[in-house]
Amino acid sequence: MNMFSKNRILAIHFVWVTVFVSSLNVATIGFTQEPDSLPSWNDGPTKAAIVDFVKRVTTEGGPDYVKPAERIATFDNDGCLWSEKPFYFQLAFAIDRIKTLAKDHPEWKSEQPFQAVLEDDLETVAKSGMEGLMKLVMESHAGMTTSEFEVIARDWLNTARHPRFDKRYHELVFQPMLELLAYLRAKEFKTFITTGGGIEFVRVFAEDVYGIPPEQVVGSSIKTKFELREGKPVLVRLAEIDFIDDKAGKPVGINSHIGRRPIASFGNSDGDHQMLQWTAAGDGARFCLLVHHTDADREWAYDRDSHVGRLDKALVDAQLRGWTVVDMKHDWQVIYPFQSQ
Amino acid sequence: MNMFSKNRILAIHFVWVTVFVSSLNVATIGFTQEPDSLPSWNDGPTKAAIVDFVKRVTTEGGPDYVKPAERIATFDNDGCLWSEKPFYFQLAFAIDRIKTLAKDHPEWKSEQPFQAVLEDDLETVAKSGMEGLMKLVMESHAGMTTSEFEVIARDWLNTARHPRFDKRYHELVFQPMLELLAYLRAKEFKTFITTGGGIEFVRVFAEDVYGIPPEQVVGSSIKTKFELREGKPVLVRLAEIDFIDDKAGKPVGINSHIGRRPIASFGNSDGDHQMLQWTAAGDGARFCLLVHHTDADREWAYDRDSHVGRLDKALVDAQLRGWTVVDMKHDWQVIYPFQSQ
Repeated sequence: MNMFSKNRILAIHFVWVTVFVSSLNVATIGFTQEPDSLPSWNDGPTKAAIVDFVKRVTTEGGPDYVKPAERIATFDNDGCLWSEKPFYFQLAFAIDRIKTLAKDHPEWKSEQPFQAVLEDDLETVAKSGMEGLMKLVMESHAGMTTSEFEVIARDWLNTARHPRFDKRYHELVFQPMLELLAYLRAKEFKTFITTGGGIEFVRVFAEDVYGIPPEQVVGSSIKTKFELREGKPVLVRLAEIDFIDDKAGKPVGINSHIGRRPIASFGNSDGDHQMLQWTAAGDGARFCLLVHHTDADREWAYDRDSHVGRLDKALVDAQLRGWTVVDMKHDWQVIYPFQSQ
Repeated sequence: MNMFSKNRILAIHFVWVTVFVSSLNVATIGFTQEPDSLPSWNDGPTKAAIVDFVKRVTTEGGPDYVKPAERIATFDNDGCLWSEKPFYFQLAFAIDRIKTLAKDHPEWKSEQPFQAVLEDDLETVAKSGMEGLMKLVMESHAGMTTSEFEVIARDWLNTARHPRFDKRYHELVFQPMLELLAYLRAKEFKTFITTGGGIEFVRVFAEDVYGIPPEQVVGSSIKTKFELREGKPVLVRLAEIDFIDDKAGKPVGINSHIGRRPIASFGNSDGDHQMLQWTAAGDGARFCLLVHHTDADREWAYDRDSHVGRLDKALVDAQLRGWTVVDMKHDWQVIYPFQSQ
């Protein structure tokens, strides 16, 4: 055997090993490692905790297996699926609506909190407290039929722009959370919104933006009344609170609309605390997550001292109970979809 | 050509035609006629109306096509999916529950309407009116946690027997309606229950019996309250009405829980009238159906003069508007599943 043929044999051996090992890699990738469903989540303990939980509850025959019908996941909206600063987006809608209606209400020029709204004096609006806020909500949200309200809210979402980012409000949704919603649904979870915001406001965009149909949106509501108007049935929105889906109201809303305890819940503020407690108290594997707003550059940074989306007691409890806390700044590669490109 | 060969040619022709026509039949059956999904429905205009509607809304490219997400179908429960005589089954549950609790309430022996319940004096119970009935409902349905109520209701369903048929109450569901629910779901409809009965009572059996998960049950409710009991979160059922899902309440409940107008609704009494009006008033193809109880031999026969499940105005409207009316006696081959064999 001369050098030449020895080299040829080595070369063949090398090629064979390369091909064999490569195909082994392909096989490994193909069978044990799925493509990354959460590309906007940086690798680390937060992402690992999510993926680990999903694997455990979806592994048939495993000790934590949950059948698809019981894979209920609930998501808060404001501050969890989209931003909530400088104030809840639905309040921006109410303010814009009051300004639109003002031409038919000359008395508002000297009546609080309307006067403050018309003068862009948000400090006085805030000082008007819950009573003042309710006046704004009722004037802007009640007195029309449900179909009329849907048109009004949709029009606003399609035209209003967020002051800081100059984007439509529904563009300020969190790309990592969109991926999480899709990932859970691919794993046969049923995803619900459980918002302190208005159920009919959120339903206007939830299906297009989050892939969540109206029947899977739970939220605060005002009463409606069935009427025949010239023989045509309508539902009229009344200036009367029906249900506040916040804090201790969230488990109540979940029980009323879903009738089954979630196995996973996602929030960002003390308004979600009881929902997470309710979720965690069920039998079997449970997953609770808080989005902690830590990124003043790309979004906002706030927790204990914030008027909007205050996160205090729930954060203490999360540390105590080992709930997952997202550090937006470090865990999220991008915040908004328009930053992806 | 002699007779013999002429016959041979005829025979070959005959065989060829037979084979050809047979294969044509097979092709026809295979491609244009689906297996009967509603075997307990007798052929006739009622069954034809259902199948025609489903075909129209599921034919892609057709003028009446409805995308799957919007194929919402709502079903009343009492008298539509199961029987409601001699009185609502949930009232039988309340009465049995009062009798169970009576040992801790010696005062009930001389306090109406409890005394009447304990003495099986249903006439006096009925005379106690809405106020008396509410007392029975609250004593039997409130004061425990949601989890405790679920166990109580499930135990009752698994042990109580209907006086006429000596069957469990959940065996008195209508076989043709079970087939209809399954047929609609196979056609990508989402099926909901919209019951005047208690939402948490119906949820106990809706998934097993009807294939309808808790989040697709809408019904009447009492208020619940979130509490931490020794650190453990519970929802306590309060003796206070939250919502009555009947008559003009049905469209309200549909709007609250589903947030989308049904394209098909199924009822049997005036309590479903507004739901059918609400459904019919939507754009595009709509289907409204009333189950008319016409079979005293196999079930019950009643309409205008019945205290339970009165059918009067809705029947007049059905005739006026061309809604489909099931004649139980003639349209249904069997009533209950246990009669199928």
